[in-house]
Amino acid sequence: MKLILALYPLLFLPALLWAQAGNSAQSRTAQPAAVVSPEVHGDRSVTFRFPDPNAREVKLQREGVEKPFAMQKGEDGVWSLTTEPLQPDYYGYAFIADGVQLVDPSNSLIKPNLLENESEVHVPGPLSLSWEVNDVPHGEIHHHFYHSAVAGDDRDYYVYTPPKYDPKENKTYPVLYLLHGYSDDASGWTAVGRANVILDNLIAQGKAKAMIVVMPLGYGTMEMIQARWNAWENKALRQENFNKFTQALLTEVMPRAESEYRIRKDRNSRAIAGLSMGGSESLLTGLNHLDKFAWIGAFSSGGIPEDFDKDFPGLDAKANQQIRLLWVACGTEDHLITVNRNLRAWLTQKGIQHTDIETPGMHTWMVWRRNLTAFAPLLFR
Amino acid sequence: MKLILALYPLLFLPALLWAQAGNSAQSRTAQPAAVVSPEVHGDRSVTFRFPDPNAREVKLQREGVEKPFAMQKGEDGVWSLTTEPLQPDYYGYAFIADGVQLVDPSNSLIKPNLLENESEVHVPGPLSLSWEVNDVPHGEIHHHFYHSAVAGDDRDYYVYTPPKYDPKENKTYPVLYLLHGYSDDASGWTAVGRANVILDNLIAQGKAKAMIVVMPLGYGTMEMIQARWNAWENKALRQENFNKFTQALLTEVMPRAESEYRIRKDRNSRAIAGLSMGGSESLLTGLNHLDKFAWIGAFSSGGIPEDFDKDFPGLDAKANQQIRLLWVACGTEDHLITVNRNLRAWLTQKGIQHTDIETPGMHTWMVWRRNLTAFAPLLFR
Repeated sequence: MKLILALYPLLFLPALLWAQAGNSAQSRTAQPAAVVSPEVHGDRSVTFRFPDPNAREVKLQREGVEKPFAMQKGEDGVWSLTTEPLQPDYYGYAFIADGVQLVDPSNSLIKPNLLENESEVHVPGPLSLSWEVNDVPHGEIHHHFYHSAVAGDDRDYYVYTPPKYDPKENKTYPVLYLLHGYSDDASGWTAVGRANVILDNLIAQGKAKAMIVVMPLGYGTMEMIQARWNAWENKALRQENFNKFTQALLTEVMPRAESEYRIRKDRNSRAIAGLSMGGSESLLTGLNHLDKFAWIGAFSSGGIPEDFDKDFPGLDAKANQQIRLLWVACGTEDHLITVNRNLRAWLTQKGIQHTDIETPGMHTWMVWRRNLTAFAPLLFR
Repeated sequence: MKLILALYPLLFLPALLWAQAGNSAQSRTAQPAAVVSPEVHGDRSVTFRFPDPNAREVKLQREGVEKPFAMQKGEDGVWSLTTEPLQPDYYGYAFIADGVQLVDPSNSLIKPNLLENESEVHVPGPLSLSWEVNDVPHGEIHHHFYHSAVAGDDRDYYVYTPPKYDPKENKTYPVLYLLHGYSDDASGWTAVGRANVILDNLIAQGKAKAMIVVMPLGYGTMEMIQARWNAWENKALRQENFNKFTQALLTEVMPRAESEYRIRKDRNSRAIAGLSMGGSESLLTGLNHLDKFAWIGAFSSGGIPEDFDKDFPGLDAKANQQIRLLWVACGTEDHLITVNRNLRAWLTQKGIQHTDIETPGMHTWMVWRRNLTAFAPLLFR
């Protein structure tokens, strides 16, 4: 093992090795086998391995499990852990080595996130699962860049166009504005949420209408990220973030998307939904702009003060004439279940029709992929 | 510090903390300051920090420097190193902790790569640098998905369309097929190479013609990645990879791109260029299909056997009538400089006109961003 450890740095000098490979006149020794992690077994259990010869304690943190698991150190300095058989899904995970969260050095699949780095493992399942790639026509993801006058920065947004979308045709499409959560970036819903795969499958099965999905950056101000999790202690910052997000969406992203794509512009063809912070943004933007949105979804939403009367001024049962769908979902093991139940109680008290959804699960992408799979088919009917 | 370390796991449980933040009725303590890394100073020196209380040795590996630097451990268990002032650029880097390469847990900017995880630091420079985002019109990046019959897998490619590109107009554009290197994925040239930013700037300055850039996945077979760096020892696999890559490009990606975009289809409007493995693919595909490509660029190319007569059968000075540009570049500190000089000597001996470019630098993205900046303006003149 000493030899293997001594060779580690070599293993990870691609330029040097490539150079050697490219020059076959040069002699070269074979490389030692790399650590394999994650290893997904036939019974869908997964072995995670992390080489760290001097750590005193290494834990595995897995999306959907609150308490990290202790890993066992092998004689070769590699810590490992094998799970029970897991439900087919994509799971985020990280190693916590002596208190420091690290991605898996043996796995190239990393979740984009502005605050925490996590790896991801795919436990494959039947093709009937909405996030598995099927042999169906695939839509396209477009990545746009612009300078935001509202936020004062250069930022991006993503747009999914469904299979067969052709900008040269006259056909128009309804649009879903789909918002990520706190710490995600604008790629979250495609890179982790697999929204494009889910929509491809639902559309191919005739379960969802062909729609365009616009996925903006979900921050009104990037100070919300610079302040890290403490940002949520700062009520003024939190409010500025929500306000400017709505302004950037309505005055920058929406007009751009509508000029760039064949998007229908009537409120009945416009939906807004999101997860966590993005769920709150969907409620705040949607319910306060019912002239623009008829379909609203909030998945595990949070970050709204409890004073719903102030958040949604003047909202009452008259809104039922405009709301085609108000879909409020949360996992029952999510710490946000209470605030979501409070919100739904307030909506009921106000006489505002809405759909209550409680599912198993915590504050995880496993829940949100299923939320999107259940929500998208209800739209534009 | 013990308290800080004890709180680390909490710091990195976004779901839990977010849940607490969302429920303001719950009391909550402020989080300790996170480790800041990388920290770019005013003089463009950079401090890297890595918390690892029990490691015996931590090194910093930085793109463009062959030998890793030793880092110093502080009393707080955080290893650190401050560089000399660096040239403005984007630099890949990683920590090597007791022989294991790790990305920076404090930095969300991670380079996509199929074999090695690396972080990235931006040392900002003047806006005249081609890879800095300027206040100019921005092109768009399109992400496409398809099933490859040649490779037998589901794969992707990216397309850059220049500012003002409008599929509804009749204007057509020349096209550059731009190929990544070994271990990169199809996003390499945009996510790391910043090709879209470089093209935006060159086009805005009138230095490059508005063009479409197609960036396919550069593997003919994914076995080339599954076998890791040892793949280069396997001559048959290497050859299969090159052959199938050409086949997938010519029979799958090119017809798709030409039907999806307003791309000119004459050879004088078609270029192919790439870095490292992609440079070799550009030479093999381009020089062996001069009926299709008039402009060829090879940046730090490698992986071709030295038997150029066999790689380019029948190629001779008659090709000069067809080749508008054959641009062969390599950094003088790159281990591949010898094979590139050999190639150029062979081209000279055959009487084939080409442009020799030697620049400072190793086998790095700093070289390739500059290569693209110099190469793109020469195209389609």
